[in-house]
Amino acid sequence: MALDSMSSDGLVVDNTLQAICYKRGSLKLLDQRKLPLETGFLDIQDSTDGWNAIRDMVVRGAPAIAIAAALSLAVEVANLKDFNGTSGDAASFLEMKLEYLVSSRPTAVNLSDAATKLKEIISKAASTATEPGSVFRAYIEASEIMLDDDVASNKAIGSHGASFLQQQQKQKISKRFSVLTHCNTGSLATAGYGTALGVIRALHAEGVLERAYCTETRPFNQGSRLTAFELVHDKIPATLIADSAAAALMKEGRVSAVIVGADRVAANVIAGDTANKIGTYSLALCAMYHHIPFYVAAPLTSVDLSLSSGQEIIIEERSAKELLHSRGGLGEQVAASGISVWNPAFDVTPANLIAGIITEKGVITKNDIKDAFDIKDFIEKAAGKSTF
Amino acid sequence: MALDSMSSDGLVVDNTLQAICYKRGSLKLLDQRKLPLETGFLDIQDSTDGWNAIRDMVVRGAPAIAIAAALSLAVEVANLKDFNGTSGDAASFLEMKLEYLVSSRPTAVNLSDAATKLKEIISKAASTATEPGSVFRAYIEASEIMLDDDVASNKAIGSHGASFLQQQQKQKISKRFSVLTHCNTGSLATAGYGTALGVIRALHAEGVLERAYCTETRPFNQGSRLTAFELVHDKIPATLIADSAAAALMKEGRVSAVIVGADRVAANVIAGDTANKIGTYSLALCAMYHHIPFYVAAPLTSVDLSLSSGQEIIIEERSAKELLHSRGGLGEQVAASGISVWNPAFDVTPANLIAGIITEKGVITKNDIKDAFDIKDFIEKAAGKSTF
Repeated sequence: MALDSMSSDGLVVDNTLQAICYKRGSLKLLDQRKLPLETGFLDIQDSTDGWNAIRDMVVRGAPAIAIAAALSLAVEVANLKDFNGTSGDAASFLEMKLEYLVSSRPTAVNLSDAATKLKEIISKAASTATEPGSVFRAYIEASEIMLDDDVASNKAIGSHGASFLQQQQKQKISKRFSVLTHCNTGSLATAGYGTALGVIRALHAEGVLERAYCTETRPFNQGSRLTAFELVHDKIPATLIADSAAAALMKEGRVSAVIVGADRVAANVIAGDTANKIGTYSLALCAMYHHIPFYVAAPLTSVDLSLSSGQEIIIEERSAKELLHSRGGLGEQVAASGISVWNPAFDVTPANLIAGIITEKGVITKNDIKDAFDIKDFIEKAAGKSTF
Repeated sequence: MALDSMSSDGLVVDNTLQAICYKRGSLKLLDQRKLPLETGFLDIQDSTDGWNAIRDMVVRGAPAIAIAAALSLAVEVANLKDFNGTSGDAASFLEMKLEYLVSSRPTAVNLSDAATKLKEIISKAASTATEPGSVFRAYIEASEIMLDDDVASNKAIGSHGASFLQQQQKQKISKRFSVLTHCNTGSLATAGYGTALGVIRALHAEGVLERAYCTETRPFNQGSRLTAFELVHDKIPATLIADSAAAALMKEGRVSAVIVGADRVAANVIAGDTANKIGTYSLALCAMYHHIPFYVAAPLTSVDLSLSSGQEIIIEERSAKELLHSRGGLGEQVAASGISVWNPAFDVTPANLIAGIITEKGVITKNDIKDAFDIKDFIEKAAGKSTF
């Protein structure tokens, strides 16, 4: 990942916000705790810095956490002055450090998945290496590939999404799009570029974006704090609305498509049911009424083949404080004392409300005959070809 | 309005929150600026106190403002030691004070309407009175009737709504209701009891309310600050949700009806189109998808016979600060600097999404043949009978 174009403030000159700024031997993380009021980068020199950054919420978003952890260790070993031990010792050293990194956020599935994959690579390298440097190099290269792959995957999502939308629009007079999105799915949640926000970035880069609309995304305000920050940073024409104003915006004819991310996509019986940030389902219902296409943008890793339908997804309920106090529960009291709260983190949007699933391998649309997504078939076919 | 049952803290013992506590010669207003954190009443001794209370937002909500203004002057004249002048001088005195009160919130239509009605009564009284005391008495009685009428109208809305819902429910096994409401339509916005919240109060009083759900009502949080406060005060089982969680709540089967207030109801061509707080339209769409009846509760004074449809209602756009900063724009910055904002105060819910309009004269339902509300016909018939 070339950072030759990095400007003095740590942001790359091509104007796309980067929260993870890496080149071999150096890692800087955008301190998300201070957003949107301050933009500062923290220098991460080793896995201890990485562990602290994850635990202290400097970095958030499942893919971003996994990659930041892996790269913090890559920086540590790239800068190792000397290492007394065999290639087996190097492998043990890395494995121990990875376990330590996983303990920074034990419930983050992406983080432990990434650690498992990296351990396999370390183990394989150690079995053939004659000196520890080879094992370290294999680890560094693998973690760099992980970063590049996530950014490339997001850029492919953006590109496929932008092309698909333009094909759909061909019959219409207007060739420009206004896209409504929800929560944060951009550079602040991924290794870079983003998923749903990646499609918006791609439409903007291709000169066909009229305007992006982002919701506040109550109660944690990922939209007003993070997505709005990214859109302003990238100079994308953008407008913030209250979550509840989305239907009125659609009625005014100001939305050509809704594009959201996904935490998990069920892929078994009712393929396509999608769990995403609370409020997504409401947007999908409003979009349907106004005949506005509703898309999910997510890498194929979000597809869970073990889920028979969205009903199997257990919805986490979060703290009442997020609604009772400002700043996601940390600030002053807003709501009346003594009121009960229901604060689900996610909701499930059924496949029948979704027009397409935008992935790094292309857009999954519905089988015309069955009016259903055939995700398994898409994945099998995609395995035979690579788009990046 | 008897206040014999008023407890030491100024709240009546029957447990229904009262924001306007009046008996002849005495007026106390619940200081809404301090809600929900503090409950304090301000003593209003004359029209100057009334003017200040309205300007300083001690009292808010269109009907509440008009009645508080009228009563502040009633208290002033009830406590007048002596008055040197004729009955004509008394009328001029009252008219001048009413004009002064209207200047506290010049754009409040209910306030200037109330002043116009009271001036007519004053003028009529002055034309027959032989001494100023008769004019003052006529004014005091008229302003007391205004208070009593608004509370009685709201109680009638509550009673009609509760009866109607129970009739609708007869075929079903469960005889209990869970009602979702939006914004604040209770004792804090009216002379007392409330409109949509009045129906919830009536269902609770009749022992058939399972639970009330109130939305936060972004961006000004009337739900989490005011409605939640009223529900907790009245010990009504209640739960607060984010606006965007309403669809998920409905999907879980936890909502038997949605009941909201109305700012204006169009009554001409497409009778029933309703303007109400932003987010109402979204709730109506979600309710329709889940086959949940959606009701509007409002006095017939909200019906605007001059509007040919909801499209004629001009939607006020409010300050961007309400979304950018906490506490409705007064608190700390939350959103990213430089983001544009669209902040409409209201949206319009078309009549086709509304199952019934609950008024003080009964529930207006749709004409089965035309599938439309015949509001004019309802008003004409209602004029011939009185339900309170």
